[in-house]
Amino acid sequence: MRSRASAIAFARTHRGRFIDELSAFIRYPSVGSDRRHAGDVAACARWLAAHLTGLGLPDVRILPTRGHPLVFASTAFERGRPVILVYGHYDVQPAGPLQDWHTPPFTPVRQGPWLFGRGASDDKGQLFAHVKGVEAWLRSGGTPVTVKFMLDGEEEIGSPSLPEGVARYRALLKADVALVSDSPMLGTGRPVITTSLRGSLGFDVDVRVAEADLHSGIFGGAIPDPIQALCRALASLQDERGRVVVSRFHTGVRRLPREEQRALAAVAPTNAAVINAARADSRCQDDGTSLFENTTVRPSLTVTGISGGHVGPGDRTVIAGAARARINVRLAPDQDPDLIATAVEHHLVAAMPRCVKASIHRGRSVKPYRIALTHPAVRAAIEACRLGFERAPALLPMGGSIAAVPVLQDLLGIPSVLIGFALPDDGKHAANERLHLPTLERAIETSIHFLAEVA
Amino acid sequence: MRSRASAIAFARTHRGRFIDELSAFIRYPSVGSDRRHAGDVAACARWLAAHLTGLGLPDVRILPTRGHPLVFASTAFERGRPVILVYGHYDVQPAGPLQDWHTPPFTPVRQGPWLFGRGASDDKGQLFAHVKGVEAWLRSGGTPVTVKFMLDGEEEIGSPSLPEGVARYRALLKADVALVSDSPMLGTGRPVITTSLRGSLGFDVDVRVAEADLHSGIFGGAIPDPIQALCRALASLQDERGRVVVSRFHTGVRRLPREEQRALAAVAPTNAAVINAARADSRCQDDGTSLFENTTVRPSLTVTGISGGHVGPGDRTVIAGAARARINVRLAPDQDPDLIATAVEHHLVAAMPRCVKASIHRGRSVKPYRIALTHPAVRAAIEACRLGFERAPALLPMGGSIAAVPVLQDLLGIPSVLIGFALPDDGKHAANERLHLPTLERAIETSIHFLAEVA
Repeated sequence: MRSRASAIAFARTHRGRFIDELSAFIRYPSVGSDRRHAGDVAACARWLAAHLTGLGLPDVRILPTRGHPLVFASTAFERGRPVILVYGHYDVQPAGPLQDWHTPPFTPVRQGPWLFGRGASDDKGQLFAHVKGVEAWLRSGGTPVTVKFMLDGEEEIGSPSLPEGVARYRALLKADVALVSDSPMLGTGRPVITTSLRGSLGFDVDVRVAEADLHSGIFGGAIPDPIQALCRALASLQDERGRVVVSRFHTGVRRLPREEQRALAAVAPTNAAVINAARADSRCQDDGTSLFENTTVRPSLTVTGISGGHVGPGDRTVIAGAARARINVRLAPDQDPDLIATAVEHHLVAAMPRCVKASIHRGRSVKPYRIALTHPAVRAAIEACRLGFERAPALLPMGGSIAAVPVLQDLLGIPSVLIGFALPDDGKHAANERLHLPTLERAIETSIHFLAEVA
Repeated sequence: MRSRASAIAFARTHRGRFIDELSAFIRYPSVGSDRRHAGDVAACARWLAAHLTGLGLPDVRILPTRGHPLVFASTAFERGRPVILVYGHYDVQPAGPLQDWHTPPFTPVRQGPWLFGRGASDDKGQLFAHVKGVEAWLRSGGTPVTVKFMLDGEEEIGSPSLPEGVARYRALLKADVALVSDSPMLGTGRPVITTSLRGSLGFDVDVRVAEADLHSGIFGGAIPDPIQALCRALASLQDERGRVVVSRFHTGVRRLPREEQRALAAVAPTNAAVINAARADSRCQDDGTSLFENTTVRPSLTVTGISGGHVGPGDRTVIAGAARARINVRLAPDQDPDLIATAVEHHLVAAMPRCVKASIHRGRSVKPYRIALTHPAVRAAIEACRLGFERAPALLPMGGSIAAVPVLQDLLGIPSVLIGFALPDDGKHAANERLHLPTLERAIETSIHFLAEVA
């Protein structure tokens, strides 16, 4: 009665409707980090729960947490069959400066093979592939395994309420393996199974010299300029080639065996490809190291924001009273978040001029992650990609962080299989984010195949 | 018929009305740097012209320029009497962040001896002292010299239209000496005649690496972060003690003879006083150099603004596509603006990492200035301060820049006598700017005395 062929056929028949439904999903500005959008996040969760109920899943719940809710759903439980927990997130990054968008971020627009909109790729489009995969199975006799969904409303802020939520609903969420699609492919038609994730640390650095702005003519030359002091401290974090020189910053980084390094080099993007995907200057690529390794299995430090004084229209020739910067650190697999956070804080405190008041606020941290390649679900994922994309997937480390993955490992004791459906130039976290619709079709079929292969 | 005593008596009798009139003047948000306030600047000029006409000045004109107009007025011309050109400005600095103000910036509020409001001190209150001084003379038989007013609407943006305006109206503006009050006193009851001004240079520095923001997980470690690149370049401008290390930055700085240095040290504010006026950390004062000299006869460099990426509520873990900073340089007397501007630009270009696109836009420059202390008008100003404030003025260099002063020197061939009526803690260019009303009364009397002494 259950037929993989009819599930695939169903998905192919209904692809147009699927895009309309995904568009309705993207229309919610579910920016989890912004209090002004709290109502939109809640409305998006309700839409998702209603949609899952409409597909016929017998158990759909909106699980409250201290923050934005988790949307939970499950197919009928059958003893003896594996339980797959699909994790994804329905919250999105802030849109950022509107003038950088060619189309309104929360009005999905289809142009050629692309669907534009904030969250189209990260992660609404990717999690939707599994929702539609389950729908296709349900319309073809039922899923071959029990599928549970746990859809997060706080991924983009580091899933602060997730550990407590997973602990609280541990029995409900019980599963054998998690399936997560929130990671990149190598390019169109080139699937990737992600084998490790970097961790993440955030810091806000506030610097103050005087209680108020001061006239730069009257005081310029007398007191330190807090912007300069901040720049000096930030610049001291790296050498002239951009390498982080914070003491103990590289503690715990696993040196790749030469064999693994060679295997990676054979399949990973070249420096030119990385620079091209970033649309950066080609001179950035001649680094002497592998940029792909730098972004996946080595730690990095980025100043993601800085602000102080006045750079807008009109002159205000003042010494700013205060300045602020935000730092994001990515941890290599096997690194310890607390140890690295302390190292960065110590460095910054020591780098401030003595009459500058600096305060450093540590944000949420996310552990790095690594999966054993011998896990049966990894093998099922490899086969599913081979069938869905007609190409063997590359097994690669990834530079991003997914807070839920180490949480599921720690609290449910289950590994996560990470099959990516995002293209490198999808514009995740940037303006003009988009989803490649032919890739969505492949992704839905890959989901259908995975549920059969893992059974 | 003309009586200094009755002019003084008139001023004392009408002090209450003068404050009401000044409040009406401050109420115009005449922010010359902001296009949205262009109408307010024009309305303020019309108010000022109407006010001067009301005082009985026979020739009042609003002189159009390429930018905001000059307000011109003149008392009756009498052959053989000196002509004094009062220069001041009716434009003001932007208010800056409103949350830093205790009262609305353009609603003058009187609290104790203070009148709060943007422009109360810089420069509406100070120029108003001369307007009221002239009124007092006119009500007491007429001014002892011919007084012309040239009131600028663009001082806070470096008076870009002034050179063209002064050249165009050269015949009308013809005078023997200029009188300018836009400089600080040493404290309440401690008048200052400013003997030199620093020049000013501005730069906008724009840095770009990629065409758009990039996910810091995916690209962190692969491409330079433009904020870090900008910070690195800015940090390289100074050493760890805040001394500017740009090659040729100190070219043209006149070394003070030991005697002059000793005279300055006797009267100039101590390091503790400078730091106290800035309300900065007392540890900033132990510099080993004279902070007063650093801020007046030596050049300085301030990063007056910086912006890039995101530091507001919510996380956007991106590598910013671009970042911008604004720099303000103050030139010591006798320094050449073009030479120093070129030196700073060369340094910044050389300090950028090679795959970072940087563009540097040079803003308007203002020449530094110095007056000969033997000029008769300086002696008249000394005597006027002695009478008006009952204390001999200090003769001191000043750290700020007044674009008009070198323009009047170059185009009209006249020096400017600078009598300051601003207190060090007036909050010029900052939030909660205020005018000390007892000082305004002294200033009006000093103006009355000056017109008699210079005759």
